[in-house]
Amino acid sequence: MAQLTIKDIAKICNVGVSTVSRAINNEPGISDKTKERIMQVVQEFNYIPNNSARNLKMVESNTIALIVTGIDNVFFQSMFGEFEVELRKHGFDYLLHAVSWQEDVVTVATELMKEKRLKGMILLGGQMERPEERLDALGIPYVLCTVAHSSEHPLPNCPWVGIDDELEGYNAVSYLINKGHRDIALVAGQRYDNAVSAQRLAGYRRALAEHGIPYREELVHFTDPQMTDFSPENGYVGAKELIASGVSFTAMFCMSDLITLGAYKALDEAGVRVPKDCSVIGFDGIELSKYMCPGLTTMYQPRVDMVKSSVELLMKEVGADNGPVHKIYEATLIERDSVITREE
Amino acid sequence: MAQLTIKDIAKICNVGVSTVSRAINNEPGISDKTKERIMQVVQEFNYIPNNSARNLKMVESNTIALIVTGIDNVFFQSMFGEFEVELRKHGFDYLLHAVSWQEDVVTVATELMKEKRLKGMILLGGQMERPEERLDALGIPYVLCTVAHSSEHPLPNCPWVGIDDELEGYNAVSYLINKGHRDIALVAGQRYDNAVSAQRLAGYRRALAEHGIPYREELVHFTDPQMTDFSPENGYVGAKELIASGVSFTAMFCMSDLITLGAYKALDEAGVRVPKDCSVIGFDGIELSKYMCPGLTTMYQPRVDMVKSSVELLMKEVGADNGPVHKIYEATLIERDSVITREE
Repeated sequence: MAQLTIKDIAKICNVGVSTVSRAINNEPGISDKTKERIMQVVQEFNYIPNNSARNLKMVESNTIALIVTGIDNVFFQSMFGEFEVELRKHGFDYLLHAVSWQEDVVTVATELMKEKRLKGMILLGGQMERPEERLDALGIPYVLCTVAHSSEHPLPNCPWVGIDDELEGYNAVSYLINKGHRDIALVAGQRYDNAVSAQRLAGYRRALAEHGIPYREELVHFTDPQMTDFSPENGYVGAKELIASGVSFTAMFCMSDLITLGAYKALDEAGVRVPKDCSVIGFDGIELSKYMCPGLTTMYQPRVDMVKSSVELLMKEVGADNGPVHKIYEATLIERDSVITREE
Repeated sequence: MAQLTIKDIAKICNVGVSTVSRAINNEPGISDKTKERIMQVVQEFNYIPNNSARNLKMVESNTIALIVTGIDNVFFQSMFGEFEVELRKHGFDYLLHAVSWQEDVVTVATELMKEKRLKGMILLGGQMERPEERLDALGIPYVLCTVAHSSEHPLPNCPWVGIDDELEGYNAVSYLINKGHRDIALVAGQRYDNAVSAQRLAGYRRALAEHGIPYREELVHFTDPQMTDFSPENGYVGAKELIASGVSFTAMFCMSDLITLGAYKALDEAGVRVPKDCSVIGFDGIELSKYMCPGLTTMYQPRVDMVKSSVELLMKEVGADNGPVHKIYEATLIERDSVITREE
């Protein structure tokens, strides 16, 4: 089932590769008889001219690739449609390509760039340390969108769009504290996560510290490494274990909206009413948070703005040379019905 | 920002393409001096050897592509991880490539096949009529997984994995009827959908007819064409409008689990308790259905089996020539807490 190459066709017909190329591309310089013979072989062997080889001759395409690490991340998924709309608005073709965790994103990007003669690329998700060192070498415009970096490293020296996870974790917990809560449970990602979960946890700790509330390990639940983090299961098991531990809390900060979905279920099963017995705040503001009962109060990441801004930064790069730009968005607190003020 | 080709490098250095190739690939047959000069130019112009051009020499790669139409479909998204696991288990590399609604999936597949020298491909989602006519011409093994076809056409004459939507719609509604319900509301997709939604609707009608229950248009809600079908919003608006219309029903069949999420919210807001006042059954069995309150009774599509079977069919094709095979799965009824028997 292997595809024939143009060389194979040339060998079969006993002519040169350029002759085959002329025949296929209907160019002058070969006899009708030779052409006919070649086309017969082409048809017989179902040979399809290789577009990629053709692309080598082209200067560049009009395609921008969205290279996604974490294709099953619900928050990223909610951005795909917007990316397509925005890129088409700017007259570009759009290509979504998933990178699996086993692959090296720069290697994938390099290959894709060559094959598709990309005009630029947007890297969505994943975690990279000092990505600019390798990405700059590719020589095409790129923007990182919500690509995580570890707590030890500052923002990379390249175009980057995202939120400040430490700050927004701080804001979420400060909101609960300002509503009178002091015993605030946290359903987090994995304990040894050193990016998103670590930064939101740091924000949780800073908010407590600023209000003179001691940090208590027993109020924090880390996900089992076997479990998908930021998932409903993460939330269900997390809330269930917190309840079972007997620790008392009047509010709960969940690191994603999907976590709150599972947490709601565990609270419901334990007869803990939201928000009467326990206030709950989520993170992300994905569509379904609106349809939870009660409607979820959550930190909305401005995904539409983040997409628009990523595309704009890329457009700027394609045209000008103004050096790297960071765009750090603020999450917006959406107040619904899952948090109430604690009565003394 | 256009990338240089190997030909450009050869021209700049005033040598042949094969000499550049030798230098880059560290092969013998050129002087150290020439090699040094070429590598200088390569570095200066940031030239990256084109893997795709290299691939032309290869007979075939070890890659199988998963080509997805409807990348934002939550049910498909739940299958991505499984596909990767299964393909790697069989020793293949995995490539996920999204097709947008504006693109022709066969054109995309053809290009990808040539660029990546694919060993095979799995097409997931979308709707195709008589796909085998164009896909067979590509000359590589392929399998269609949950690719819809219109009600007028029978299953395509090629490997196809999915469920029988008419039958499973019938099964869902029969289940409600057997629980004593006769006034069964339906929250459907779009009115002019002629594939999945049409087939599940046909199943709804057949179940009613077999039990002597007249079909009543006022119990059926079709989504506004402006709205994303099968979404929570679809369910929220659908249930809200059904309630507002004053029509009375004791059960509701929603065409997806995400629809039930929105329907739960609308029912809750109207003070209609699930399942006491209204039983609800969903479709898909995605993870979050388990975490709804009450737990959602739903028609589970065996996504893991469907993935395994798609990969197995493809493996068979890669190795043997046994003609097309269809694999039609049954959905499984998962009974949770959202449906109760109606008391007379």
